[in-house]
Amino acid sequence: MSKLRFNISVSLDGFVAGPAPSVEEPLGRGGESLHEWVVKLQSWRRAHGLEGGTVNEDDEVMREWTTNVGATIMGRNMFGGQPGPWDRAKLWRGWWGDNPPFRHPVFVLTHHPRDPLTFDNGTSFTFITEGIAAALDQAREGAGAQDVALGGGADVAGQYLAAGLIDELELHIVPILLGGGAKLFDGAGTDLHGLELVRTIAGDGVVHLKLGRDAD
Amino acid sequence: MSKLRFNISVSLDGFVAGPAPSVEEPLGRGGESLHEWVVKLQSWRRAHGLEGGTVNEDDEVMREWTTNVGATIMGRNMFGGQPGPWDRAKLWRGWWGDNPPFRHPVFVLTHHPRDPLTFDNGTSFTFITEGIAAALDQAREGAGAQDVALGGGADVAGQYLAAGLIDELELHIVPILLGGGAKLFDGAGTDLHGLELVRTIAGDGVVHLKLGRDAD
Repeated sequence: MSKLRFNISVSLDGFVAGPAPSVEEPLGRGGESLHEWVVKLQSWRRAHGLEGGTVNEDDEVMREWTTNVGATIMGRNMFGGQPGPWDRAKLWRGWWGDNPPFRHPVFVLTHHPRDPLTFDNGTSFTFITEGIAAALDQAREGAGAQDVALGGGADVAGQYLAAGLIDELELHIVPILLGGGAKLFDGAGTDLHGLELVRTIAGDGVVHLKLGRDAD
Repeated sequence: MSKLRFNISVSLDGFVAGPAPSVEEPLGRGGESLHEWVVKLQSWRRAHGLEGGTVNEDDEVMREWTTNVGATIMGRNMFGGQPGPWDRAKLWRGWWGDNPPFRHPVFVLTHHPRDPLTFDNGTSFTFITEGIAAALDQAREGAGAQDVALGGGADVAGQYLAAGLIDELELHIVPILLGGGAKLFDGAGTDLHGLELVRTIAGDGVVHLKLGRDAD
């Protein structure tokens, strides 16, 4: 069966976003620093239709995360828009414009039913109102023989972790302190459901800790 | 000048002790798991007068932390005892019995003045009431050409970090979630005062991230 895989950047003090998020700083105070290591990589830039970028071990880690992925699950906030007139008018088509960087079926967890959206580049957004297990079932079907990526946010990932549904988890530990903000897996308990450290890579200003079910 | 060095074990979610510490669980719920990797090592066992133990990369990391150390600074809770009749009667001589594993001068931060204690094995405890900078001055003098180790606890380490006085910091990241408890450097702000990642070692069920002032 295809795996459910999740990766996220986290500060030394265990935050995945900084304190006081706002329109100007959606990732909270200092939160952008969590992602400096990734936005310069070739794999990230290519996925977003940009030229150039660094090729190194970090790039290899991120390339692995975008390889063999046939579907993505995300929470409503990641898809964006506000439930309200915009949403009812079905004008909001996600943050990514006409060329969303997925190129496969995406399943958005929401309380607001809505018809699927499709894009020319192979991306589709299907809106799931029946909860995380239903979303995973549909995503696995959509992914075929490939894996399912959990896009986030952190709260949705925490729900999947608490339900024991995450098969592979990689934390990109960034050597900064955020001092507050959104905690990793906040409220998801302390059970890693058998996930163990299977790989560590020291990158350029970031350390990758991969957890999986088989320590091989 | 001799360096001030601090190392501590931390969970994936950024806790250095678990929730609800008690007499039975002084490190809080699950907190003991943070130290499983270290108590089995030869270096730790030797320092505590025990035979045997594992020799591996983790052991090398810990050996490095006990090498070239000429003095230790710790907070009052780490020295132990309760301020009160026991303390006034000067009966409390630390948690470690007649053979404390330091074998060099130890400087204990406290609000309660007390005469120094000395032990046959070279350990002494000097009680400092003038604050962290005074303790560091005296510890440096006591250490001679060697470095000063910051023994903890986490709150005292946070004060030294916030004052920009820590020169070397190693976090031993243990792949567990504690879900609550004492946060790494809680309230110490977000400024690492120039400390940068200088080394990463993947150990046996633990990953070591060393930060220092020179990325060489």
